[in-house]
Amino acid sequence: MIDATDSSSTRPYLIRALYEWCTDNGFTPFVAVLVDETVRVPNEYVKDGEIVLNISFDATSSLQLGNEFIEFKGRFGGVARDILVPVNRVLAIYARENGQGMAFPMLAASESTASEPHPTETKPTTLSSVSKHSEKHTTTATKPPGGTKPSLTRIK
Amino acid sequence: MIDATDSSSTRPYLIRALYEWCTDNGFTPFVAVLVDETVRVPNEYVKDGEIVLNISFDATSSLQLGNEFIEFKGRFGGVARDILVPVNRVLAIYARENGQGMAFPMLAASESTASEPHPTETKPTTLSSVSKHSEKHTTTATKPPGGTKPSLTRIK
Repeated sequence: MIDATDSSSTRPYLIRALYEWCTDNGFTPFVAVLVDETVRVPNEYVKDGEIVLNISFDATSSLQLGNEFIEFKGRFGGVARDILVPVNRVLAIYARENGQGMAFPMLAASESTASEPHPTETKPTTLSSVSKHSEKHTTTATKPPGGTKPSLTRIK
Repeated sequence: MIDATDSSSTRPYLIRALYEWCTDNGFTPFVAVLVDETVRVPNEYVKDGEIVLNISFDATSSLQLGNEFIEFKGRFGGVARDILVPVNRVLAIYARENGQGMAFPMLAASESTASEPHPTETKPTTLSSVSKHSEKHTTTATKPPGGTKPSLTRIK
């Protein structure tokens, strides 16, 4: 029996899948990120330890959705910045327009400062109904809908 | 606000993502299907209204993981058969070797005979820990692990 911890994470594959789904449907893919020292983003856009990034084709250049990192150049307040996000810091990817997408399990920011969470100890994700929200999204970095937790999602 | 029902299903995107993850990790992708008259599979391998199909590269030919249908030719008892599975009949896709993958919401077989489930009425998927199982998988069609419900999955 091969243990699940021997396999690579499904997360980057699911991120790419939801990105493709958003693009095919004309939606804007947003990624919510739990920021720590491994995440390279403009700190002034981080709120409550999190940042939401617009990773749509129009909002980025040189976007790479790799198995280990999400990388792109984005404009923040008119200034181009290099963004680097380890895939294991992604809290969720969802469509700006309706909140549909997927959330991923993550230890809370306060718990994860001491050490990286063990894959075997991550909590299973519970997908719940979409909570509608009507926040303005005028910049590449936006506030996660609903406060500190990203909008959860419904698979249909 | 665009309603979620206006968008296409994320399911085929997630199926392709997990298929790719299995393949990249050397795992065997299994698909559990809730059979009805829209599903074209060998009836003699359907048990309790479900069938589990090995959709690995080695077990199939002409595999197409489309947005509407999964199609391939598979061998059942040495005989090549054309398989057609509407994506909305897929209960789960997971790695044979460790059960990791993803389950999808579905009305029970008895409820779905009258009419197709409305996308807006589907239940959210709850992902739970992998339940280990050690069943033999010697043919293309196999019994779903753990009885009528597919093995659920953990995203890490």
